[in-house]
Amino acid sequence: EKFIHLCNPHLEKMKEDILYHFALGTGTHDFPTLFGDVKFVCVGGSPSRMKAFIAYIAEELGLGSPGCDYPNICAGTDRYAMYKVGPVLSVSHGMGIPSISIMLHELIKLLYHAKCSDITIIRIGTSGGIGLEPGSVVITRQSVDATFKPQLEQVVLGKTVIRSTNLDEQLAKELMQCSKEIGQFNTVIGNTMCTLDFYEGQGRLDGAICLYNEEEKLQYLKNAYDSGVRNIEMESSVFAAMCNLSGVKAAVVCVTLLNRLEGDQISSSHDVLVEYQQRPQKLVGYFIKKSLGKV
Amino acid sequence: EKFIHLCNPHLEKMKEDILYHFALGTGTHDFPTLFGDVKFVCVGGSPSRMKAFIAYIAEELGLGSPGCDYPNICAGTDRYAMYKVGPVLSVSHGMGIPSISIMLHELIKLLYHAKCSDITIIRIGTSGGIGLEPGSVVITRQSVDATFKPQLEQVVLGKTVIRSTNLDEQLAKELMQCSKEIGQFNTVIGNTMCTLDFYEGQGRLDGAICLYNEEEKLQYLKNAYDSGVRNIEMESSVFAAMCNLSGVKAAVVCVTLLNRLEGDQISSSHDVLVEYQQRPQKLVGYFIKKSLGKV
Repeated sequence: EKFIHLCNPHLEKMKEDILYHFALGTGTHDFPTLFGDVKFVCVGGSPSRMKAFIAYIAEELGLGSPGCDYPNICAGTDRYAMYKVGPVLSVSHGMGIPSISIMLHELIKLLYHAKCSDITIIRIGTSGGIGLEPGSVVITRQSVDATFKPQLEQVVLGKTVIRSTNLDEQLAKELMQCSKEIGQFNTVIGNTMCTLDFYEGQGRLDGAICLYNEEEKLQYLKNAYDSGVRNIEMESSVFAAMCNLSGVKAAVVCVTLLNRLEGDQISSSHDVLVEYQQRPQKLVGYFIKKSLGKV
Repeated sequence: EKFIHLCNPHLEKMKEDILYHFALGTGTHDFPTLFGDVKFVCVGGSPSRMKAFIAYIAEELGLGSPGCDYPNICAGTDRYAMYKVGPVLSVSHGMGIPSISIMLHELIKLLYHAKCSDITIIRIGTSGGIGLEPGSVVITRQSVDATFKPQLEQVVLGKTVIRSTNLDEQLAKELMQCSKEIGQFNTVIGNTMCTLDFYEGQGRLDGAICLYNEEEKLQYLKNAYDSGVRNIEMESSVFAAMCNLSGVKAAVVCVTLLNRLEGDQISSSHDVLVEYQQRPQKLVGYFIKKSLGKV
């Protein structure tokens, strides 16, 4: 059994731990009873998508009934939403590194307080693709920064700290195998660029601020492609870094909503985008079923 | 009349502009009709707080009836929430620089497409205080980074760009005068430190990861205080930088939920926290009333 590795000696001395952004606390909630059986945690930006995922996985695992409503465990706050069915926890994280980082600090502490073991965490998200047909799914090999380095720069007490953003190689391969078995959409393993901004930070020409031209933009995206980047999103680096430090197996599975070599605006129809967003859910749902011996 | 200054020559060439994270677009929505009369934009992290604000300001301005429901203009997405009454727009932005930056790119374009003029944008938020009684309100003089410099580092096409984070001095003074006239809570003008992380980035001892000790933490917070910092939050720097570039008058008004020199956990009762969070709303509500000649 592999437990959460908590990189913080101070927590042992605290009588009570309030997870403020979840509106949960060890003084008011019995974490081992509520969460002790969790084995799979799926996280994603949008609260409604994470609610849809819990209904989907419940049905897939034969644990729910169609039309059944799943209560939001974090109903006391609107910062994040959290749902649970059997061994699966589904949590939203908002957009960007700071937003997912707050959530992960509190999630890792939650799993630690609950004495969970052998946890797998998978981020299921959306992204912009580079050189891929829209709707393709990318399983992240390495998360890289805006200069294509597999690292995350953080500022701690005013000093810069560099952390590794590697993800579990074996888990990525297993997910790739699952996609082959499903055979419904194009899936690749590639590097994922993680940026702090959606517009200028990803070389878009359609933000409120843009001080470069189309040629410079395309050169940047081509350089990214040549370095192995296949998609761009805004959370994977700190996700990888924090899971690494906490000894948790982690993967990032994102669908690409457009091919950035061909444009910047997300202009596919609502229905097409909804179907694309179900692909990571399908893939990860199949992986969980298979891991539980239910395929 | 002062219009929005759009720092992007490419937008003029676009036939249609889809504001993806608002689920609004110039091809589907008539922006001048919907938003042309907006003069005040209030933004804050939590969607439910921004909904509460629109009900509050509607009543203050005599534009609403008690119990009246305000529809979410961004109902087609769960990324952000937006409400409007008369000349006031209220928009949520989630947590952290990347999340508010996506929202601001689309908000600035929305105001530009709507041909709005003489706009004032105010962020009303929560923060951790340094050396202040909890519940105090801080009006930001300058937003500073984690090394106390009044700047924002952004990476654009892989290269670092430095932007100024100054805010409107006159507007800050006017808000301070309003607080004196209300006379209900302690308010100061001070610098606001903007960080990329809530736990390690703000020197907390209670995150999932903490590799420093209490003495180092306190030294860092005291250095921040000595440099003029009175509170810490996670959005002000990019808010100031983007409003500067777009020629929009901007202010940041945050209540402090705790004094970080005395602890890290937000452990006040729910009712006390709710009352604290109403203080920036009261202050900014009074300012808007006064600006419209209704005080």
